[in-house]
Amino acid sequence: MSLRPLWDARGIAVIGASDRAGAIGRLPVQFLQRYGYAGPIYPVRPDGAPVAGLPSHASVADVPGPVDLAMVMVAADRVISAVRDCAAAGVPVVVVCSSGFAEVGEDGAALQDELVATARELGVRVLGPNCIGTVGTTTGQVSSFSPLFAGEHTQLVPGSLGFVSQSGALGYGAVSLAFERGLGLGWVVNTGNEADISATEVLAELAQEPGCAGLLAYAESLGDLAPLADVVAGGTPVALLKAGRSDAGARAAASHTGALAAHDAVVDAALRQIGVVRVDDVDELLDVGDVMDLARTVRGHTIRRVAIVTTSGGSGILAADAIEAHGLRLAELSEQTLTTLDDIVPAYGSTANPVDVTASVMSNPALFDDALGAIAGDDGVDAIVACFCVLTGSDVDAVVTALSQVRERTGVPVIAVRTGADHLAPTAAATMRAAGLPVYQTPARAVRALAALAQFAAPPVREKTTGASPAARPDTPSTRTDWSSLSEGATDEHALKALLREAGLPVPVGRIVTGADDAVAAVQEAGGRAVAKAVVPGLLHKSDAGGVILDVTPERAAEVHDQLAAMGGQVLMEEMVPGGVEALVGSTDTPLGRIITVGVGGVLTEIVADVALRLLPVERADVEEMLDDTRLGRLLGGVRGQGPADRGALVDAVLGIADLAAALPEGAELDLNPITVLADGRGCRILDAALALPDAAPATPDSPPDPEGD
Amino acid sequence: MSLRPLWDARGIAVIGASDRAGAIGRLPVQFLQRYGYAGPIYPVRPDGAPVAGLPSHASVADVPGPVDLAMVMVAADRVISAVRDCAAAGVPVVVVCSSGFAEVGEDGAALQDELVATARELGVRVLGPNCIGTVGTTTGQVSSFSPLFAGEHTQLVPGSLGFVSQSGALGYGAVSLAFERGLGLGWVVNTGNEADISATEVLAELAQEPGCAGLLAYAESLGDLAPLADVVAGGTPVALLKAGRSDAGARAAASHTGALAAHDAVVDAALRQIGVVRVDDVDELLDVGDVMDLARTVRGHTIRRVAIVTTSGGSGILAADAIEAHGLRLAELSEQTLTTLDDIVPAYGSTANPVDVTASVMSNPALFDDALGAIAGDDGVDAIVACFCVLTGSDVDAVVTALSQVRERTGVPVIAVRTGADHLAPTAAATMRAAGLPVYQTPARAVRALAALAQFAAPPVREKTTGASPAARPDTPSTRTDWSSLSEGATDEHALKALLREAGLPVPVGRIVTGADDAVAAVQEAGGRAVAKAVVPGLLHKSDAGGVILDVTPERAAEVHDQLAAMGGQVLMEEMVPGGVEALVGSTDTPLGRIITVGVGGVLTEIVADVALRLLPVERADVEEMLDDTRLGRLLGGVRGQGPADRGALVDAVLGIADLAAALPEGAELDLNPITVLADGRGCRILDAALALPDAAPATPDSPPDPEGD
Repeated sequence: MSLRPLWDARGIAVIGASDRAGAIGRLPVQFLQRYGYAGPIYPVRPDGAPVAGLPSHASVADVPGPVDLAMVMVAADRVISAVRDCAAAGVPVVVVCSSGFAEVGEDGAALQDELVATARELGVRVLGPNCIGTVGTTTGQVSSFSPLFAGEHTQLVPGSLGFVSQSGALGYGAVSLAFERGLGLGWVVNTGNEADISATEVLAELAQEPGCAGLLAYAESLGDLAPLADVVAGGTPVALLKAGRSDAGARAAASHTGALAAHDAVVDAALRQIGVVRVDDVDELLDVGDVMDLARTVRGHTIRRVAIVTTSGGSGILAADAIEAHGLRLAELSEQTLTTLDDIVPAYGSTANPVDVTASVMSNPALFDDALGAIAGDDGVDAIVACFCVLTGSDVDAVVTALSQVRERTGVPVIAVRTGADHLAPTAAATMRAAGLPVYQTPARAVRALAALAQFAAPPVREKTTGASPAARPDTPSTRTDWSSLSEGATDEHALKALLREAGLPVPVGRIVTGADDAVAAVQEAGGRAVAKAVVPGLLHKSDAGGVILDVTPERAAEVHDQLAAMGGQVLMEEMVPGGVEALVGSTDTPLGRIITVGVGGVLTEIVADVALRLLPVERADVEEMLDDTRLGRLLGGVRGQGPADRGALVDAVLGIADLAAALPEGAELDLNPITVLADGRGCRILDAALALPDAAPATPDSPPDPEGD
Repeated sequence: MSLRPLWDARGIAVIGASDRAGAIGRLPVQFLQRYGYAGPIYPVRPDGAPVAGLPSHASVADVPGPVDLAMVMVAADRVISAVRDCAAAGVPVVVVCSSGFAEVGEDGAALQDELVATARELGVRVLGPNCIGTVGTTTGQVSSFSPLFAGEHTQLVPGSLGFVSQSGALGYGAVSLAFERGLGLGWVVNTGNEADISATEVLAELAQEPGCAGLLAYAESLGDLAPLADVVAGGTPVALLKAGRSDAGARAAASHTGALAAHDAVVDAALRQIGVVRVDDVDELLDVGDVMDLARTVRGHTIRRVAIVTTSGGSGILAADAIEAHGLRLAELSEQTLTTLDDIVPAYGSTANPVDVTASVMSNPALFDDALGAIAGDDGVDAIVACFCVLTGSDVDAVVTALSQVRERTGVPVIAVRTGADHLAPTAAATMRAAGLPVYQTPARAVRALAALAQFAAPPVREKTTGASPAARPDTPSTRTDWSSLSEGATDEHALKALLREAGLPVPVGRIVTGADDAVAAVQEAGGRAVAKAVVPGLLHKSDAGGVILDVTPERAAEVHDQLAAMGGQVLMEEMVPGGVEALVGSTDTPLGRIITVGVGGVLTEIVADVALRLLPVERADVEEMLDDTRLGRLLGGVRGQGPADRGALVDAVLGIADLAAALPEGAELDLNPITVLADGRGCRILDAALALPDAAPATPDSPPDPEGD
């Protein structure tokens, strides 16, 4: 069912309307009138008295015309009955503004569950409860009671961006700041408790609206990210302010929304994987919003090499700092460009990037034009950051003309920085905005926005995540892997390794021996040296318990066997694998989905404590990135005089493990550590493997989880 | 000589004045008049024609009254002669605005050197060259030609902060933004090329001005930090935007100012040590400036436990995130406070910190007052962050009153956040500012400023750095250490260790042996097991070259001796030290002074790559902090089932090494790695030591420096 009535309703009923000045039940009626909503507005109140000059109706059933949006503003205990009335009257979408649900505790949560159940049963979609409403700016549909719209000077600023916020007060505060800076919003939705309609669902629907160039969102909890991944993959830029980054913030968010938050590192990785730009503050959210219109024009381009044109050396340096901090690069200008600039830029300026054209060039529009043209025409330049400081009135037009002409002629995106009070050039901001030139107050903010533009221009290339479970892909190991063969508790190392070997993953040659004599034979089979391991169901910390013996020769094999057999389980004899770089690969469930972790393993696991993680599924490029994001990449490259290790073999193994892990039962935790990566060309071996199934009772419940693997 | 004429001159000469509209030689004359400078203004131009309605003089010698500041605005090649004229006329301070010096290359640099030499010879102080001038706002002394002061609506906003900038355009751009937000500045100085007067010198002098509450600065290069350290230690808060954080930015800064930049990690550590708050952007600089007046009132207090009072759950979570990110803590409210809040805050709000009082409490000033009072009165609360979103006109006064009353009554600092457009509460910013309540647009910015306030409240306690060379301290090892005994090239391990032992530092027992028989004796002396090392002058990478043999028994001693002696030098036999946590300690010279580095050493050096650094001298607390800043702290605490190592012994050793290092000759590089830290109570041992003296030619010049020590 479409959510479009939230911003483009044919008719709106306000249930619980009031005529008392300042009453929140009067505000939406008043705002819809004030901002020019053209459809019919139907106040609903039991006594039928007029509201804000409009006749009211005793019930939504009595409303004469079609209504596709109802705002419910009655006390919590009367909300469900109001939703029933709406369903009976054929209203498809209801905005429940009332508080008194999950946010007030257990009783409220129960009431909220009942509300959702009722709505689902009746086929009505519910926004909220505990929300402040929605806005469609082009239609003047202010179906909201935010005090923002009571502001004497408040005007809607229509535009191409959608804004979705879980928080009402903060959300509309941010909307007021967007309007103030001239950042136009076409659609505003406050989702509140998200009992039924989630922010991601709204974002996915807004992305389908004609004219929607991008989406801004504030969220405290995240559910299924697949719809958001599809929005980004479909070409709509999304920037998200996800609160609860810190432990303290996450606790506050959990108590605010009642949702269990995913660990922030998982959120970070997941958003990065699907190409959502994550921001840390309201300012930054709007700053990124300011480049979204530009994103359409650069889609598919690589934006990495940035030229800085500045009238202030200081601004140029700050911009260069920010460029490096955001993973962009200062462009190297060609000889030809430098020659052209040499003729234009005075000696006390600089022709090297950052190009300091000095104020004297600024005052000569033709020269500034030439300099800018040479830079934009340089094949080594993907984008330009143009910095001005105390640019005053009359100079602004010349600058704007030059910047927008060069943008038009060359297609190179230009971001402007004006570090000066508004009153020095009162029309600058509006002029630049009208010319499609995003402008920022400081170099750092401009470059941050440019980095977002670069991300929007080249979003991660990946198949649609929806329904693309790896198990469904042909020819992957997981299609042959049946985890169910590992019964509860039967997650012993040998069984697990057999399963890994079955899936084509590299595990050492080895087998369970039947007795002391067989142990001797097994060591001989393994080439005369072996590792002996006790396989005792539920035995954690095998090494610490003396359950692993290295370098076993045929002579010692019988004795070693007896020693390990005395621990009460079986004995595994495996080939000795030479030393190499030790990695770890693991997989765990999180509220956002199953993740894979890759990092430094073996004895360094705890000391170095350096792992990267990604949501499944992962592609080869993701795995390469994970290696480079951790010290593991450096270790594989060879340190302390060692040659490079077989990185390719590890990447293959990680991809295989990722496919296997995707088929793991819910809640299962896989831990492969160490995986020894041998010298280049010699592959890698999974030396130890552990799997914790959710229902398996650990044998030693008091032991902490062992980061070293065994 | 006082620099005060830069902002409080008795009379000002403008050399190179012009009457042509818009000429930069006219602007200072015009600006001094426009902003009400009360002293005499003397335009100087050869033809004696009037400038901006004032009579001019052919030479500064002809000026009738006293002049203690001259602005020089003539072409570069006439600047030195102008400075001579000033000296002859008894002008103590000259602002050289002219360009064409170090910033244009070698010829300009030579001219600048000549300018400085002339000024020093004549006893004249020079600001610039290549600068835009200075401002004293209370006296209306706009001795500057920045276009800012030509702005139709520009007004000076006097206040308690000083602003010093190496960059002119960016600096005055930032000043315009400060004025725009109502942040008052008493003094503005643009230092330009800093040929004579440096930004740090100006800051130190401004700190002495009555009424100066804090200092803001923008710098591209930093010289001697001792004056700045004294400013902070003297109680004046300093915030610094140091550009050139990135490699790209540092290169741009070097080309802009010609100064060799210190590595950014050194800058970071140095500023942190002396208590200067470092910021990354212009916005942030001004945001921090906004709490400086408050800093006076909290000096000596610890600000760590923060209560958040909010009308929006979302703002509260964002504030909590920022609090954790900045190393502050959410305060735990007492039972009594929670009980009080329970009676006030509605069910859909929250009494736990962040305290969500909801909009309904806001509309009842008495309740809001009570809630705020209970929180501020809680002994567990050091500061309050109060967040509002769409706060409209009439509500502002009540909020401001409540906030400032609680601040006055309890002394607890209160920082306000208003996330909403200005037009919704046009007087809010000014009202809050007048009440001494810093107010920010977003929670993250407010908390960042609060973190700076916390730093200002409790600056690092340390002796004045000026002249406090550790060698001058009594009873430190360095008073007994004579590095000169190590002649050039004679930096061999044994000599170095002898010197360390002499200084009371823990090195293994050992000696140079005289032959194979003596080697056997030495092993026996060492307890029957020893480490044998080749001591070959200039031999780097001893281990790789086979020059270190472990676990030598008396039986093998003779053979090992002969093998090592064959390498061409002496043989050192040392006691075997049991395994422990391996640390490294080093010391290097940097443009900001000599630093000490401490981190993870031994075989993990390169893999973990985790060291902290500080400028010398360091105190015990600094060393403890360095351990905690790296993985070394964790390793010392005991990982993988190990007990804690002797952290105290390592800290003692580092302090001893720091004292020794302070006496090292310039350019010398000391590298002690590994230092094995044994189990708690058993001390530590410096296992390997290397010293590179600046003139010593390395034996193997092609080898890279060896991070493992030998």
